[in-house]
Amino acid sequence: MTLTLMLVIAAGLLAVAYGFITAQSVMKAPAGTDRMQEIAKAIQEGAQAYLNKQYTTITIVGVVVFALLFIFFRDWAPPVGFLFGAVLSGAAGYIGMLVSVRANVRTTEASRSGLAKGLDIAFKSGAVTGMLVAGLALLGLAVYFAVLTSVTEHVDDRRVVEGLIALSLGASLISVFARLGGGIFTKGADVGGDLVGKVEAGIPEDDPRNAATIADNVGDNVGDCAGMAADLFETYVVTIAATMVLGAILFAPTEIQILSGGDGVFDNVRTFMLYPLTIGASCIVTSIIGTYFVKLSKGSTNVMGALYKGLIATGGLSIIALAVVTGLMLGFDEVFSTRDGATTFTGLSLFYCGIAGLVVTGAIVWVTEYYTGTGFRPVKSVAKASESGHGTNVIQGLAVSMEATALPALIIMVGIAFTFGVAGLYGIATAVTTMLALAGMIVALDAFGPVTDNAGGIAEMSELDSSVRETTDALDAVGNTTKAVTKGYAIGSAGLGALVLFAAYAKDLEFFVENSDKFEFFEGVTVSFDLSNPYVIIGLFAGGLLPFLFGSLAMQAVGRAAGAIVEEVRRQFKEKPGIMQGTERPDYARAVNLLTGAAIKEMIVPSLLPILGPIVLYVLIGLAVAGFAPDGAAAGKDAALSALGAMLMGTIITGLFVALSMTAGGGAWDNAKKYIEDGNHGGKGSEAHKAAVTGDTVGDPYKDTAGPAVNPMIKITNIVALLMLAFFAHG
Amino acid sequence: MTLTLMLVIAAGLLAVAYGFITAQSVMKAPAGTDRMQEIAKAIQEGAQAYLNKQYTTITIVGVVVFALLFIFFRDWAPPVGFLFGAVLSGAAGYIGMLVSVRANVRTTEASRSGLAKGLDIAFKSGAVTGMLVAGLALLGLAVYFAVLTSVTEHVDDRRVVEGLIALSLGASLISVFARLGGGIFTKGADVGGDLVGKVEAGIPEDDPRNAATIADNVGDNVGDCAGMAADLFETYVVTIAATMVLGAILFAPTEIQILSGGDGVFDNVRTFMLYPLTIGASCIVTSIIGTYFVKLSKGSTNVMGALYKGLIATGGLSIIALAVVTGLMLGFDEVFSTRDGATTFTGLSLFYCGIAGLVVTGAIVWVTEYYTGTGFRPVKSVAKASESGHGTNVIQGLAVSMEATALPALIIMVGIAFTFGVAGLYGIATAVTTMLALAGMIVALDAFGPVTDNAGGIAEMSELDSSVRETTDALDAVGNTTKAVTKGYAIGSAGLGALVLFAAYAKDLEFFVENSDKFEFFEGVTVSFDLSNPYVIIGLFAGGLLPFLFGSLAMQAVGRAAGAIVEEVRRQFKEKPGIMQGTERPDYARAVNLLTGAAIKEMIVPSLLPILGPIVLYVLIGLAVAGFAPDGAAAGKDAALSALGAMLMGTIITGLFVALSMTAGGGAWDNAKKYIEDGNHGGKGSEAHKAAVTGDTVGDPYKDTAGPAVNPMIKITNIVALLMLAFFAHG
Repeated sequence: MTLTLMLVIAAGLLAVAYGFITAQSVMKAPAGTDRMQEIAKAIQEGAQAYLNKQYTTITIVGVVVFALLFIFFRDWAPPVGFLFGAVLSGAAGYIGMLVSVRANVRTTEASRSGLAKGLDIAFKSGAVTGMLVAGLALLGLAVYFAVLTSVTEHVDDRRVVEGLIALSLGASLISVFARLGGGIFTKGADVGGDLVGKVEAGIPEDDPRNAATIADNVGDNVGDCAGMAADLFETYVVTIAATMVLGAILFAPTEIQILSGGDGVFDNVRTFMLYPLTIGASCIVTSIIGTYFVKLSKGSTNVMGALYKGLIATGGLSIIALAVVTGLMLGFDEVFSTRDGATTFTGLSLFYCGIAGLVVTGAIVWVTEYYTGTGFRPVKSVAKASESGHGTNVIQGLAVSMEATALPALIIMVGIAFTFGVAGLYGIATAVTTMLALAGMIVALDAFGPVTDNAGGIAEMSELDSSVRETTDALDAVGNTTKAVTKGYAIGSAGLGALVLFAAYAKDLEFFVENSDKFEFFEGVTVSFDLSNPYVIIGLFAGGLLPFLFGSLAMQAVGRAAGAIVEEVRRQFKEKPGIMQGTERPDYARAVNLLTGAAIKEMIVPSLLPILGPIVLYVLIGLAVAGFAPDGAAAGKDAALSALGAMLMGTIITGLFVALSMTAGGGAWDNAKKYIEDGNHGGKGSEAHKAAVTGDTVGDPYKDTAGPAVNPMIKITNIVALLMLAFFAHG
Repeated sequence: MTLTLMLVIAAGLLAVAYGFITAQSVMKAPAGTDRMQEIAKAIQEGAQAYLNKQYTTITIVGVVVFALLFIFFRDWAPPVGFLFGAVLSGAAGYIGMLVSVRANVRTTEASRSGLAKGLDIAFKSGAVTGMLVAGLALLGLAVYFAVLTSVTEHVDDRRVVEGLIALSLGASLISVFARLGGGIFTKGADVGGDLVGKVEAGIPEDDPRNAATIADNVGDNVGDCAGMAADLFETYVVTIAATMVLGAILFAPTEIQILSGGDGVFDNVRTFMLYPLTIGASCIVTSIIGTYFVKLSKGSTNVMGALYKGLIATGGLSIIALAVVTGLMLGFDEVFSTRDGATTFTGLSLFYCGIAGLVVTGAIVWVTEYYTGTGFRPVKSVAKASESGHGTNVIQGLAVSMEATALPALIIMVGIAFTFGVAGLYGIATAVTTMLALAGMIVALDAFGPVTDNAGGIAEMSELDSSVRETTDALDAVGNTTKAVTKGYAIGSAGLGALVLFAAYAKDLEFFVENSDKFEFFEGVTVSFDLSNPYVIIGLFAGGLLPFLFGSLAMQAVGRAAGAIVEEVRRQFKEKPGIMQGTERPDYARAVNLLTGAAIKEMIVPSLLPILGPIVLYVLIGLAVAGFAPDGAAAGKDAALSALGAMLMGTIITGLFVALSMTAGGGAWDNAKKYIEDGNHGGKGSEAHKAAVTGDTVGDPYKDTAGPAVNPMIKITNIVALLMLAFFAHG
């Protein structure tokens, strides 16, 4: 193990240590009255019960995948990598949830002494999840890389590549299940609870008489905290692993590539595989420092501003860190060129690409805030449209959701053009890596949301003074925007990284074809990814279809779960008439159990879509073409491999727009409702407010179930395709 | 002019003659009571006033484009072709509207004597529009082809190609304006009228006290009739012109390509340029025959069944006609091969491709009926979801809309694979041509919808017996499905034809590069449409963005127009208190004028998006790359041309899914409301019904404004790109 790798692992451990220390400081804060603690306990138990059951189910799927990997590859590297990725991803989500369900009540308690105190606890607990996500992801990558390279002769051995891809698969599998299961749980509770409580029974949100209230709060933790953590863990791991794989494929180890004078000869491949890890490591340090900048200025109530201070500090310090790392690892003036000689760049070029990644992050954050913040045209237009009714609210919300895709898409296009122009494929990969290197800070901003949402619920249910609820509401409104920001950031990185993921497939395929003496399956294979190849078009359409079908399944699942909750709460109101008078307590646990069952059941089918999609496409195209073409099997193989590659790209193209529109639109709907509740357009209880509640309901599965789950879905499609290549190579 | 071309022109004239004769027979039917005629007159005047104003505005844009084409090309062929396409498209829509606004009241009158009589008049008037669309489109193509080839030496002269492309541009420009303008008008009236009438004032739909009622009926004629006619005219012209252009590019005139024995030597290029025209001609004849099969069986009320009889008869006869045409034009056993020798096929292969086109049409019709008919799961699920409120109705509707993209996409993928496998690019083109050759019949089925919708409105407003309204409602419910069918069919053909449109660009570019001694601009140009080219990815994203942004703009335009109507009607209620008592008559004309102004104003910006999009992308990419790349201008040109080509494909990929989901989803929402009104889930006035009205409102701009306008938008993007190439070639 080199010193560099040791330092990377040290950074990962530092993040984990920060997480545990900060978690303890959160725990030390007072947990409020008995009633508050009782409620918090119910949430804790529900969340833990759900996650236990969810992970048990995923374990079953995981064991099957583990076994299949072992059987197909007849090697330990892929199955063990898969296991490692899955377990670490699960751990990040689980521990994050454990902290989050304890921080919620402490945030409520702290909010009794004011906004600054409430922000402090809530943000700290978010930072725990954030640092655990980034730290464990980096540790997983670095440690497994160390393990793999300790048993292989070359750093770019196929075993290393396969191990890293399998590690990504583990993270992705957890992620899609956690995003979907958690998303269905949380939005089933939210939508169902609102419909039966707010609309039918006419009681306020988070009213203790509503049997779905605890489930709603549980949902925030298992969906918005644990599910989100798994998603970002996955994005981090896949992005950095893809960059490392690209480093292994693009550069030649045998020819020393230093073209201009340098301070010594080193192995390019190892350097370009380690470089993304060092970026991740250095940005963990800057993220940790950044957390200390998150503080309200004296007398200020600008929560978003306080969070921005942290983000800006992290971003600024990351530029310095990036410069240091690049200078030490590569040297600014060193000239490198790829194996095929097509691209030549310097260390300075990669530094620019890293900065581009930071700029893209900043730009996406800004655009997301514009589209989901209450201070700007889009949210105001949705609120205004609510005046003429439910229908116009939804129409305007849909229009905003579609419009909100434009600027992020343009930012991504500019990002691709710039970074590719500066340093080719590896330049794009460096930009995405740097973007994701800030994940610790971004997740911290996001995980803060469900904690404040819960804190508000606890305040309401324990009938605290309304000023406490106002404080938590102020924090929660910001949470809506930060949640949208994280989702835009995750899917934006997938868009910018589209070419990297596709390149991993294309270059891998190229490698196998070139070395078809070793990889028999690829003998004589000629694949074209040209748009004039009809199988490329078929692949693009097939990939383009996945996000639409997946989104539809996810939304229908939420609809069914919400319907079940409506019936359950109605039944309880009927069977226990004392609930409405406040003399009887509703059976919260039944609602939680019901949703647990529903979410676990409903998450399976949509999750299988991206796993089976590539396999089915490959087999069908292969068989169809083999049956008709004059040269049979060979033509079938060519067509199927072309279509499979195009499928990856197709999924990203429609997935980017679907996910961006859903997450931004949902945020806009939610905040339009909040904007009206702040006293605009007639305020709470007005007709406009009712219309805005409808929009919010529509936005719920959009932004918290279907939309965010598209990101891991895209990744799984990509990784399954890569693993299929690896499997064929094993023949 | 050859005999074949004369026969094609004769078929076009036959369709026009059929149109005029049938129109006269519709006019002869009794027009009902004075009150009915008075209402019909108001609708007629409104529709005519709107279309006059719309076409005046389009004329201004058209004159500018005409002048630009003349200036850029310094030749008459493109500007005259443009003019020809635009005028014929406008004529088809305008005459269709003239018949439709006269047939509506006659359908009401006929419905007093029963369903069969009502269907007869309504369908006949739809058939007028249908045959005019197909007939004028075919005439335009055939006559201009005759004109162009009479002044050029070779049938595949660039002038012929440019003339045909410009003809398509004329049709497309009218189409996007007509679809958008008409769509904004009709849905502004519909949404606004419903909101202020049904929801606020509590008066029924089409109530004469609502000032927006006449405007709503006007909208059906200018949007669903004239707008739809322009759209299908455009689709027909673009598809057949693209097939002709492909025939000119793919085959070599100098080498006689008959490889096996045949009855003589003929010019391949001319044959393959004429073949699509002859398919169109023969299917016009079968469509006319098919119209006579549309009749209710004795005692039956199955309107859809009656329409299907006509469609199936047309389809069956078209197979025979296709066989005759193929046998005569090509011979079944003749073997042909393309200029580059890459594809070899027989006449029989093309016959199979034609049948595939018919099968795709049938399959899309079936799938659309499944997703929008009241008898199947999707619509029922939306109706069921209405029970738990507005939000769940919208969620389920959105889920259905997204799910509805899957089967059509799969059908299209299978269609591409099969037809390409059988006869390459020209095989796909033949399939799409055959698909579109049925346009006469399909438009007839569709144009029938607005007539029955109007007939119901007239029955309501002239306070006829409720049985009349029931009869027109039965016809109208079928109209919702046939409307969705046409849109699915139009966008489906664009999806299947994606590769044809892209190939027209790619092959054209290839031709210019190969002959860069004549076309200086293309000297040294090397363009790659490979997915690993970053500019291809940028182009795909840029193209993918267009339908989302366009859809958003269109929906917002409807929202604004509806808002203006709400205010106008409210004002009238306030200023004329007698309206509600029925003692004062509302000022219908003011609402019509207001919408006319709004629709004309609002249609401009979205329409410019697909025109300017390709130009802006080309310029920006070109400049950016030229500024940074070491080899400057040359690299910029390569990058920009690659991105432009990919943009075409990107627009089709997301456009297909966006348009399919919007049109199917809107149809499902509309019919879910009808299903509840039929007495399910509580029937009219129930909470479920209110939720279903919200869903219907959301679906309105989805299915009648944004969704269908995506199809011409895609085409314009493609044609503008083709014209840019032609312009560069002129240097």
